Amino acid sequence: MSVTKEQPNVESQAIAAKKAAKTLSLLSTEEKNEALHILADTLEKNTEVILEANEVDLQAGREKGYDTAYMDRLALSKERIFDFADGLRQVAKLEDPTGNILSNWTLDNGLLVEKVTVPLGVIGMIYEARPNVTVDATGLALKSGNAIVLKGGSSALSSNKAIVQVMHEALKETKIPQEAVQFIASTDREATQQLFTMKEHIDVLIPRGGGSLINAVVNNATVPVLETGVGNCHLYIDVEADVEKALNILVNAKTDRPAVCNALETAIIHEGWLEKNRDVLVKTLQEYGISVHGDETALSYIPNSVLANEEDWANEYLSLDLAVKTVSNVEEAIDHIEAYGTKHSEAIVTENKATAKTFMSLVDASALYHNASTRFTDGGALGFGAEIGISTQKLHARGPMGLPALTTVKFMMSGNGQTR
Amino acid sequence: MSVTKEQPNVESQAIAAKKAAKTLSLLSTEEKNEALHILADTLEKNTEVILEANEVDLQAGREKGYDTAYMDRLALSKERIFDFADGLRQVAKLEDPTGNILSNWTLDNGLLVEKVTVPLGVIGMIYEARPNVTVDATGLALKSGNAIVLKGGSSALSSNKAIVQVMHEALKETKIPQEAVQFIASTDREATQQLFTMKEHIDVLIPRGGGSLINAVVNNATVPVLETGVGNCHLYIDVEADVEKALNILVNAKTDRPAVCNALETAIIHEGWLEKNRDVLVKTLQEYGISVHGDETALSYIPNSVLANEEDWANEYLSLDLAVKTVSNVEEAIDHIEAYGTKHSEAIVTENKATAKTFMSLVDASALYHNASTRFTDGGALGFGAEIGISTQKLHARGPMGLPALTTVKFMMSGNGQTR
Repeated sequence: MSVTKEQPNVESQAIAAKKAAKTLSLLSTEEKNEALHILADTLEKNTEVILEANEVDLQAGREKGYDTAYMDRLALSKERIFDFADGLRQVAKLEDPTGNILSNWTLDNGLLVEKVTVPLGVIGMIYEARPNVTVDATGLALKSGNAIVLKGGSSALSSNKAIVQVMHEALKETKIPQEAVQFIASTDREATQQLFTMKEHIDVLIPRGGGSLINAVVNNATVPVLETGVGNCHLYIDVEADVEKALNILVNAKTDRPAVCNALETAIIHEGWLEKNRDVLVKTLQEYGISVHGDETALSYIPNSVLANEEDWANEYLSLDLAVKTVSNVEEAIDHIEAYGTKHSEAIVTENKATAKTFMSLVDASALYHNASTRFTDGGALGFGAEIGISTQKLHARGPMGLPALTTVKFMMSGNGQTR
Repeated sequence: MSVTKEQPNVESQAIAAKKAAKTLSLLSTEEKNEALHILADTLEKNTEVILEANEVDLQAGREKGYDTAYMDRLALSKERIFDFADGLRQVAKLEDPTGNILSNWTLDNGLLVEKVTVPLGVIGMIYEARPNVTVDATGLALKSGNAIVLKGGSSALSSNKAIVQVMHEALKETKIPQEAVQFIASTDREATQQLFTMKEHIDVLIPRGGGSLINAVVNNATVPVLETGVGNCHLYIDVEADVEKALNILVNAKTDRPAVCNALETAIIHEGWLEKNRDVLVKTLQEYGISVHGDETALSYIPNSVLANEEDWANEYLSLDLAVKTVSNVEEAIDHIEAYGTKHSEAIVTENKATAKTFMSLVDASALYHNASTRFTDGGALGFGAEIGISTQKLHARGPMGLPALTTVKFMMSGNGQTR
């Protein structure tokens, strides 16, 4: 592979990260925690530098005409930077996920077997605009003894560069080698693609962003991927659903933060319930400004709703739009979720325990809710302390991923000459 | 996709498996165990039919001039079939890996959170000649509540077909739908490749076989893969190694079963130890018929050895050949393993605890041994009861994989209307 000046040597960065990961893996919990505090303090001290760099990104964003939501994710402030720092201090408080003996036993021949948690090694983080990921992911990686290679979105390049520069300065005062945090400054697509196949040097890729970014990584990477989630979440309102619970949960899941992955996208409503509770449902939908895209039966009950098409069932709205599917039993609801769900978060509202059990057993998703809002699928809300993402895959880690998702195990055998 | 008569409809088989997996996931442990016993009894009763079908494969193998080792893996006997049946009865005795509540807690708002183990769903098993995999993998899949799609090697087609037919007959007498066990009878490459991308219907692919099969699956599949292992295993004999332990372990790891993945391929020997123990080492190597491919220093000590090249360091011999690398400290040994190891099983012999600790901490592999043979990396030897393979990857499962590797988790939340 020839490397020109325009193409930064991504491979040499990954190799440096791998080497630094070894040093990092030998540090004590205290040494890692101390480093996280120094990172936090140094970020706070360098707020001005980071905000100046952020202004460059914001200016470019304004010129490109990015929408308000996008600009909001991009924008930093003194308060946000202090929040990043506090986040690092929170991570320092969490239990070290490495060095835990998950199980141990002694064979009849005296061989001691220990299954011990160890860092994965090098984490490749591929993400979009949010500069907070630069700090959050670094904190979680370092706490779990992993080096990290960061590849942020080009629209936050100046902000991310400044943040990493500050973190590198801070690391000088710690036992963690600066090389444990690598930032790919190239905005070249090729730089990202190089990460996809660097199995020798990178142990796992974590994409954070929209569906197209995640699919690009999943479909092209030979490095193992922790797939984080697109959430096409459903709420099934059963014929035996309590009206107040159903409406509260619907409103909360749909309107609390419509743009997040655990927000509600489709309500599946039992026809019997709909017939009985049409008026209060319609009133609630209007009150909260929820626009309905329904099937024909739904349309006949809900005024101002439009006919749903295949797209409506399959995609996330991430807005106050809501697809409404009517069914005549729980099995039809389960079939609809099987066809269109993304295995993220699915909820049922019913007072019938047997119906709830059928739903919870047969729906294939990382998080199932009986009489509660899908919004709880979140490391913070569930008490994990910190979250690297929400996995929608089944292998390794499923659902909200805390620090343990960034570890693997070693079987450590100690003997006195045992042979087989 | 158009389907002709020549191309069996692999997709429809996978869809049928997915459907059957739902029924299977609702069965009790007792119902699954009973089914395993019925499968075992029926296999024993149908020994003749299976042996006749096996003879077709053996005849074809003889005509193609397969080597003895290959023919041995292919050949069945009454005893072997009874062993398969006993294997199923052993699996019935193992703890059900599903339905375990790994952790549970209640949020301040009263929401009960349970993290529960559940089947993966549908397992795609892609394997080479050994017909025992057809039975073993089916038993492990069914016990863990998973449907299975079997794609065996073409040289065992007749045997596998007969075994699956017998198992299908047996399943009629059980609560498990026949469709939970699918066998891809096509020997077409395309049939295998269809499995690679069937993310909608297959939850995980497990390749069992040589390096080229495993690489083909890992590099081309978009379905998640449980990578099972090529083992280029090393034994580091430190300057402070006990002579008897070192030689016993070397002989055991190299000669007990040279063709398996946990067999020794390269001995890394400290020059100081080599100088002191040359005579007894040479005598031992000769006694056990071990052929040495060494670096220049090794050659100067060990008569009849040949110079090792890059291939010798990188590949598995799976024979009585042994690569010998000399080093002057543990760090050089670790670097050599880092460069050439396959992250399977690595051992150190030393009486120095600090040296052992350095080795065990810094070598990146699924199983590390201090003063014991690499041959213990095996589900049976470690007491797992049964093994679906030895994972050399870091995500999901690492090292010998028992039944829990065939499960994932669901977060099950029960509330009374909680919103966020």
